[in-house]
Amino acid sequence: MGTVFSDRISDVPRSFIREILKVTVDREVISFAGGLPGRDLFPVEEIKDAAMKVLTESGRDVLQYSTSEGHLPLREWISRRYLKRKGLDVPPEQILITSGSQQGLDLLGKTFLNEGDGVVIEEPGYLGAIQAFSIYRSAFHPVPLNRDGVDTALLAKALAGERVKLFYAVPNFQNPSGITYTEEVRKKIAGLVKTGEVILIEDDPYGELRFLGADMPSLKTLAPRNTVLLGSFSKIVVPSFRVGWIAAREDIMEKLLVAKQASDLHTNYLGQRIIHQYLMDNDIEKHIATIREAYGRQREAMVEAIREHFPEGVAFTEPEGGMFLWVSLPAGISSMKVFDRAIAQKVAFVPGNPFYTTGGDRSTMRLNFSSVDAGTIRTGIERLGRVIKEFL
Amino acid sequence: MGTVFSDRISDVPRSFIREILKVTVDREVISFAGGLPGRDLFPVEEIKDAAMKVLTESGRDVLQYSTSEGHLPLREWISRRYLKRKGLDVPPEQILITSGSQQGLDLLGKTFLNEGDGVVIEEPGYLGAIQAFSIYRSAFHPVPLNRDGVDTALLAKALAGERVKLFYAVPNFQNPSGITYTEEVRKKIAGLVKTGEVILIEDDPYGELRFLGADMPSLKTLAPRNTVLLGSFSKIVVPSFRVGWIAAREDIMEKLLVAKQASDLHTNYLGQRIIHQYLMDNDIEKHIATIREAYGRQREAMVEAIREHFPEGVAFTEPEGGMFLWVSLPAGISSMKVFDRAIAQKVAFVPGNPFYTTGGDRSTMRLNFSSVDAGTIRTGIERLGRVIKEFL
Repeated sequence: MGTVFSDRISDVPRSFIREILKVTVDREVISFAGGLPGRDLFPVEEIKDAAMKVLTESGRDVLQYSTSEGHLPLREWISRRYLKRKGLDVPPEQILITSGSQQGLDLLGKTFLNEGDGVVIEEPGYLGAIQAFSIYRSAFHPVPLNRDGVDTALLAKALAGERVKLFYAVPNFQNPSGITYTEEVRKKIAGLVKTGEVILIEDDPYGELRFLGADMPSLKTLAPRNTVLLGSFSKIVVPSFRVGWIAAREDIMEKLLVAKQASDLHTNYLGQRIIHQYLMDNDIEKHIATIREAYGRQREAMVEAIREHFPEGVAFTEPEGGMFLWVSLPAGISSMKVFDRAIAQKVAFVPGNPFYTTGGDRSTMRLNFSSVDAGTIRTGIERLGRVIKEFL
Repeated sequence: MGTVFSDRISDVPRSFIREILKVTVDREVISFAGGLPGRDLFPVEEIKDAAMKVLTESGRDVLQYSTSEGHLPLREWISRRYLKRKGLDVPPEQILITSGSQQGLDLLGKTFLNEGDGVVIEEPGYLGAIQAFSIYRSAFHPVPLNRDGVDTALLAKALAGERVKLFYAVPNFQNPSGITYTEEVRKKIAGLVKTGEVILIEDDPYGELRFLGADMPSLKTLAPRNTVLLGSFSKIVVPSFRVGWIAAREDIMEKLLVAKQASDLHTNYLGQRIIHQYLMDNDIEKHIATIREAYGRQREAMVEAIREHFPEGVAFTEPEGGMFLWVSLPAGISSMKVFDRAIAQKVAFVPGNPFYTTGGDRSTMRLNFSSVDAGTIRTGIERLGRVIKEFL
């Protein structure tokens, strides 16, 4: 019966991370593999209060079907915050609430991609985006990341490719690498996309989580018409509600709305209402500062432990924010093989392979520091260091 | 810039219903146009209690990312209920929680449809399904509905068509027609699909809402391997959470899971947990009985008012459950034109046009009776009767 399935579904890479997470349910395994926000930071009581309030004050409304665009006061809040924090003028009419940023990617795939259309993507790139666009049978054009962001010379070439429609980028604390684009790189990118018709997807789930250095201008401020900006409450409030958004100009928004209706009618409305109530009644800046501080400490613990326990010849990024750090082992060492041995030593990470669209075995690995406390990070990195040394 | 969009997104019919709902926000308009459950029936207090309980007892868990498959105890509940109510043996491993049934349709499109693949669909058919499958550029093969269900002779021909992969059916209280398939029709359909490789999508959002007659066997009990069954909590608990499910055999489930991950990672988890808690702490049978009784009364009021106020030559269905009733005006009367005049008289409905995949103007209309009380129904039908008479 295998032949009845669509070609696309066979093309989508299986989520290797999912497989890994199964291995790491063993409570003795210290896992740097996940991508989870720190659960101790969730504002449980505040969310409970907000839930009570909306269910008490407008119970029947929050239980009924709602609009595909999303809760207007929430879109207004996002709009005001963009203006305040980034000087970015996005009216609420240009904001669509999505079922997490992952749905944003799916809707953009639906709206833009014919089979074989080109998508320029960072290498290494975000696995969720690779999966979402694979569904629409896109042709990937990977562009390597340097320490200061995507390689702009190679980007220029890639953007000029035939049938290229989208350029997908995570300019702040990129997943998986932790790299942040410099202002210079951002300006070059804006210059490149402004002259053409390629849509730049600026995915910014981690932008608020900066614990070092200064904020960089959003690509959407530099190339407003050509940029679609994705945001999410998953990393600054709670992930389980699946509430994110897309900011895009009106002709794109109109198409996205058609795609949204066909996909799930609207994003769960209780979640939208609770988040909005939470934002009204609490100081989100203070909450974000708490997250930043915690992740900053954990990142510091990880960097220090890597310096102490990893052998020479291992390179790693030192992110200024976000949740991930990227390790490059000496060429020739398979991180898949390291993974097998690491699991036996009760420590886990994500091998680099799934973050590349070109296949092949890799010597890189992604480490998460947001969901493990500093003490555990030290123990885990020491274990991992021992395993890596066995390969030298 | 129009050319940058995908071909598919231009193919999807704009939601005419959305447009209509805009016209009907005028509070003086009596609207039979929507598809909303009755809001007075929502179990607001019980949902509030359930929300408090899950947030108090497992706050951090219900706020964290969750599994793509969905909350296991909820899937177990669905599995047990299928066995009890329908004698249907679907283990929890063959149930995927979706962001409403609409997402179920999108995931099935992703999983099965290459461009140009055939989808057999009822005529008139559910607009949400037409939109969802249009995204994957399917070729529709409409089969007319008779009073006893889909026309099985024409269905046999349609199923034998080239590249036909899916047959989409709503056998209980169909949207838009209100028609229910007889047992004989169901058995014929099962016989037809069992011999081939076409997947039958049995969409059953209204199955529990029967106020007259006896339950019919699910198509999935008659052709278990070839049938994918969609269900939803939208009509029996609350719609705003967007929690539905797909029941499918394991090789299909594996593919659907890949599609689900690429679409939104997982369905909002708080909503799943609240619904499960609600089901644990309350008598759902009693709640469903209350809904059935209310909708039964409203349907009765509508049928009686139609008999009294609509002119001769107008035919209409008398549904045994669900939320919709279907009216056929004498041939040649455009229900679009009736709509314009009806709006001026402060009454609204959905003209038949968007429920057909073959275009053209129609003399049919869909009337909703779930969201309007009996008194208002009588007033609205009287107004509508007057308008229709002007066209004779």
